[in-house]
Amino acid sequence: LKELKDSLLEVEEKYRKAMVSNAQLDNEKTNMMYEVDTLKDSLMELEEMLFETRRELEEKTKDLEREKHAHSILQFQFSELKETLKQSEELLTKHGIVLGPDL
Amino acid sequence: LKELKDSLLEVEEKYRKAMVSNAQLDNEKTNMMYEVDTLKDSLMELEEMLFETRRELEEKTKDLEREKHAHSILQFQFSELKETLKQSEELLTKHGIVLGPDL
Repeated sequence: LKELKDSLLEVEEKYRKAMVSNAQLDNEKTNMMYEVDTLKDSLMELEEMLFETRRELEEKTKDLEREKHAHSILQFQFSELKETLKQSEELLTKHGIVLGPDL
Repeated sequence: LKELKDSLLEVEEKYRKAMVSNAQLDNEKTNMMYEVDTLKDSLMELEEMLFETRRELEEKTKDLEREKHAHSILQFQFSELKETLKQSEELLTKHGIVLGPDL
């Protein structure tokens, strides 16, 4: 009988400990679920920011291409104009016309 | 005695169930720890990509500002040159000099 009582006490103690560990594990699990959700939210937020920043980068890249294109056209027109002016001024000097002070 | 045996059996059964649930919780916890680590890795990766994309955007913005600045200077020089050419051509016409075909 004594033996039976002892093993009952022993199992009850083991059971109690198991339940304590159970509660602790359950608590840890809940904390982790919360952490997983928080991490997932941050991940989504970062993905949106990355998407947005990439969109901005793409737009800025297009703006730069447009600006470079316009600039190179103007560069071309500028050298053409310079050529025209050179000829015009050569013509003036050929005819002995002195360019005015304002020129 | 019978009662004692029954309660021993009962507690043993409860203990067994508690251990099964313990193992299950422990397993879930391990899976979650893995998920948390994976999420943290992805988060770090995304942060790096965002940092890199922002750096690129900043650089592209500076390039665009430089391009715009150079373009506006050329714009100014272009209109000045146009003005000079106008005057030069007015002088030629005033002196009755007909601009050559190549002009």
